[in-house]
Amino acid sequence: MYTLYYSPGTASMVVHLALLEIGALHELRLVDFDTDAQHDPAYLKLNPRGVVPTLVIDGRPLSESAALLMVLAERHPEAKLAPAPGTPEREAWQQWIVYLSNTLMSTYRFWFYPSELGAPEHTPEVHAALQRKVESVWDLLDAQLNANGPYLLGREFSGADLLLTMLMRWSRNMPRPVTEWPALKRLADLVRARPSWQKLYEIEGLSEW
Amino acid sequence: MYTLYYSPGTASMVVHLALLEIGALHELRLVDFDTDAQHDPAYLKLNPRGVVPTLVIDGRPLSESAALLMVLAERHPEAKLAPAPGTPEREAWQQWIVYLSNTLMSTYRFWFYPSELGAPEHTPEVHAALQRKVESVWDLLDAQLNANGPYLLGREFSGADLLLTMLMRWSRNMPRPVTEWPALKRLADLVRARPSWQKLYEIEGLSEW
Ligand SMILES: N[C@@H](CCC(=O)N[C@@H](CS)C(=O)NCC(=O)O)C(=O)O
Ligand SMILES: N[C@@H](CCC(=O)N[C@@H](CS)C(=O)NCC(=O)O)C(=O)O
Repeated sequence: MYTLYYSPGTASMVVHLALLEIGALHELRLVDFDTDAQHDPAYLKLNPRGVVPTLVIDGRPLSESAALLMVLAERHPEAKLAPAPGTPEREAWQQWIVYLSNTLMSTYRFWFYPSELGAPEHTPEVHAALQRKVESVWDLLDAQLNANGPYLLGREFSGADLLLTMLMRWSRNMPRPVTEWPALKRLADLVRARPSWQKLYEIEGLSEW
Repeated sequence: MYTLYYSPGTASMVVHLALLEIGALHELRLVDFDTDAQHDPAYLKLNPRGVVPTLVIDGRPLSESAALLMVLAERHPEAKLAPAPGTPEREAWQQWIVYLSNTLMSTYRFWFYPSELGAPEHTPEVHAALQRKVESVWDLLDAQLNANGPYLLGREFSGADLLLTMLMRWSRNMPRPVTEWPALKRLADLVRARPSWQKLYEIEGLSEW
């Protein structure tokens, strides 16, 4: 029923984690970046932008990791990746997921793909500015978690924490990795201790944080 | 019950449009960018990033225009801004809204706020690259609408079209405004003919497209 096109440690990670948390049957298809498989004509039919993840549900290809998290949470309410509809927590959940996608994931895209800003490498000014933008997200989220943590929604874990922890992981080689922000570090530790995280590391063959 | 903090023609527009489509009672509060009101300490308590929109629901401040569209659609299913839960259309709706926020809105942010890339003005390389990124979104969406239009979900209007049309409007002073893409121009014309769009222009005092 579910087929996930993925590449280890990339934006597909949150969708893979959600499938593992749900315990939903799924097939994995590796999209091998080393052979530029994301630009194969057959793959571009599923995902015209040539990125992962793509989740095929009953033959329908869908993309955008944050949207796929919402879709899976809504299809499997019993997994409690999202708070129940009609609650204030649900609305906060939607806010955080969109915020992470709009502000943080998009900035990472420019950080990791300088060509999308017109150069093989960032100028020092652009590099510093993108770094500042990512760090301003850590500042905001660390304050949020300090005031109302340990999870994004407070006391309760949700799928938003999977998305955030994936994004935190991507900072590990940045000048100031997110683990320098204590409340974010604590959240990362909680999520990394979950069976879904550990299982994903095995399956995707990841080691470093 | 609803209080919308807005500035004319900005990202608050889609939330204002949604409220008008729903016919929900709401109060408007202008955030005056000319006096930098978005950075007033009182406003920053509602919206720590100092941006519009903020929607206060029963005393709870929420942000992120695309999330607010989802929240309002879910609170008012009778307005049909979103397809019913559990349908394939619902999942496509979530995908498009997240895509628009992740890819297009975030790129506009850098386009309109060069300081977030570390300079008072973009270099020609960055300027051209951001323009290309916006145009690649128009290419993708125009193909989508040609294959399965006139709306983002096909035959039926949805709240996703409000978000897209707001974002299309922001291209009007770009080198190639979106109206050069025929299927997108047709969608814009459909949305601009809606009473909600016309009412918003009156209330926000907008004139040019
Ligand atoms: N907004 C998209 C971003 C997807 C994305 O940028 N994926 C990257 C990996 S993290 C990718 O596929 N890169 C390969 C390429 O662009 O060639 C999402 O959240 O799904
Ligand atoms: N991702 C946010 C973006 C909000 C945003 O960037 N708003 C702009 C207007 S379009 C703003 O408030 N600018 C004022 C400023 O940054 O000083 C959303 O969709 O709500």
